[in-house]
Amino acid sequence: MVPLITAASACSLHNVMLPSQNYGTKKGIKCGTNLGQGFGMKRACCGGLQIKANSQNYNGDDKFSRVFSTSSIRQNFTIRAYEVDANGIASIETLMNYFQHSITYHCKTLGVHDDVAGSTKEMIKRNLVWVYSEMQVSTYRYPKWDDAVEVETWLSTAGMNAVRFNWIVRDFKTNQMLNRASSISVLMNKLTRRLSKIPEEVRREFESYLVNSRIIIKDGDKKIPKLDDTTADYICTGLRPRWSDLDINFHVNNAKYVSWILESIPQSILMNYELSAMSLKFKRECNRDSKLQSLAEVCSDKNNNNSDNNIECNHMLRFEDGVEILRGRTQWRPKPTNNFDIFNHVPEDSIKDL
Amino acid sequence: MVPLITAASACSLHNVMLPSQNYGTKKGIKCGTNLGQGFGMKRACCGGLQIKANSQNYNGDDKFSRVFSTSSIRQNFTIRAYEVDANGIASIETLMNYFQHSITYHCKTLGVHDDVAGSTKEMIKRNLVWVYSEMQVSTYRYPKWDDAVEVETWLSTAGMNAVRFNWIVRDFKTNQMLNRASSISVLMNKLTRRLSKIPEEVRREFESYLVNSRIIIKDGDKKIPKLDDTTADYICTGLRPRWSDLDINFHVNNAKYVSWILESIPQSILMNYELSAMSLKFKRECNRDSKLQSLAEVCSDKNNNNSDNNIECNHMLRFEDGVEILRGRTQWRPKPTNNFDIFNHVPEDSIKDL
Repeated sequence: MVPLITAASACSLHNVMLPSQNYGTKKGIKCGTNLGQGFGMKRACCGGLQIKANSQNYNGDDKFSRVFSTSSIRQNFTIRAYEVDANGIASIETLMNYFQHSITYHCKTLGVHDDVAGSTKEMIKRNLVWVYSEMQVSTYRYPKWDDAVEVETWLSTAGMNAVRFNWIVRDFKTNQMLNRASSISVLMNKLTRRLSKIPEEVRREFESYLVNSRIIIKDGDKKIPKLDDTTADYICTGLRPRWSDLDINFHVNNAKYVSWILESIPQSILMNYELSAMSLKFKRECNRDSKLQSLAEVCSDKNNNNSDNNIECNHMLRFEDGVEILRGRTQWRPKPTNNFDIFNHVPEDSIKDL
Repeated sequence: MVPLITAASACSLHNVMLPSQNYGTKKGIKCGTNLGQGFGMKRACCGGLQIKANSQNYNGDDKFSRVFSTSSIRQNFTIRAYEVDANGIASIETLMNYFQHSITYHCKTLGVHDDVAGSTKEMIKRNLVWVYSEMQVSTYRYPKWDDAVEVETWLSTAGMNAVRFNWIVRDFKTNQMLNRASSISVLMNKLTRRLSKIPEEVRREFESYLVNSRIIIKDGDKKIPKLDDTTADYICTGLRPRWSDLDINFHVNNAKYVSWILESIPQSILMNYELSAMSLKFKRECNRDSKLQSLAEVCSDKNNNNSDNNIECNHMLRFEDGVEILRGRTQWRPKPTNNFDIFNHVPEDSIKDL
């Protein structure tokens, strides 16, 4: 098994650049495509390119509102009952799932990908699959149950042997940006489980769809420290992947790594704060037999002078023998509302038990 | 903490009754409702009542194809990329999630439920939530990625202090029945975590929507045995709920119980068989601090004379101190196709590693 990336690169969540100040501007221009009669169009600047989107009247459709373009595609999701967490809002795992689904469908729609794993024809010939080597996520507001969101995706260049996947999540009704994410993805051979260069035949399949965009979440120079038993404030041991955590490539889904990160965060933070930003460096994959530990260091958000009680955490996932799987940083802000107050008192009109 | 049901009742997966032989018959009768111009209608017999469904041209819409009736509601889902398991088909957890979402939305659509937990106004006043006390699922074929399915739900009577939720999943294009499920649901006070009778004020809110239907999956007289260290063939220890397993009621979602059941099943079965039926008796809830064990007894399907190599398993989830959480039975049939053959050989054209 080979590291997904060979060294942890510097990272910060604070240097964030938008592709355009007028990103997401909506204009009510009528369209005559076959995507849906009576629907309007909106125009927005994505990665420096003009794109078209069909979304004036959202009907909760996964497919119907989908927009086709060589630069970006927008897809709508309605937050389902089982996708909200104990806080009553879409969980971070749900957002990670939306990112995975939308990028896979993006590439399928373009005719680039050919299966559920997002592999092209040339990738399938060579048993290659995409894996994330790093990912950054910023969240401004979490949607709640039954909210409709629009996820915009596009691919951009990231050197010779990687591709950047990009996402913006917006409130469908208001067009307000809710979340933003970007990942560096590389190829892995699913038989040898080793990383691969991008073969020329594979690159030719998607290079015309790559956008030379500005990066919407830029890595900074703040290195994520390596944690150990002495520097970690919390260590959660005995974590194991479940059968249901495996995807079709016998690969633990990236969203599950995030759920393991949460395991080492004190419940007082999980109940009173919400995740505002996250940067992950994936170093190794793990399989169903792996036994993992999740380490967390909780520190104040020094870059924000802690004026609004934000919290910053450093994370590491490792095998029991100490070998790193993931290094990460999360930022947390106080919750706007707290779902857990109800558990602190018993009302007078309590019910009769059977 | 109180048992969700006080005693394990008898159960068999073999006595299955359909509400009608012509269930799911589709007729191309034009409709003029505002649910979607140009869409046809179909009629089917559900629980002995005539219902209407709008589904001739599915567009992948969660909401647009939804059908309103006092007896049943149909909702469409497209299997998303992250909802398939290592077998490449919708996981059983995905189906359980669809069941939860569709029944919640069903009741919200009727104006009966008022929040993501499926609580009515009178339930919210009393801090009551629905919990499953038992569940039966039959699967005939699993949908795969990007397949469209239609989930039909309805509520039916189940004595004075319970309600039966019912589901049928169909292939949207062919109308073929894929899965069928039924649950007995009771009320729990989310502060005391104790079961409750159904207060008269709560019953009045939904009783007009209860169907006196025939049961689509009927309990039989085959008792699920209690397993222990001597009778179980496989015991998986050290299982713990993750933060992400909790729903808005601080309740471990029922779909997670199923994932724990799978943990004690040998990988050779998981890789070569697919779940064809499942019966669960929920006895206690567990919280985030619980430590669980999953026990399984693997036996042949005696009722089927094992002529087609089916497998039957008995299950128990328990706390580490031996207290039961769940008792269950699963049935497995050989997979029609196997996704795992590829992992048994390395092709000649293996790629160059970085």
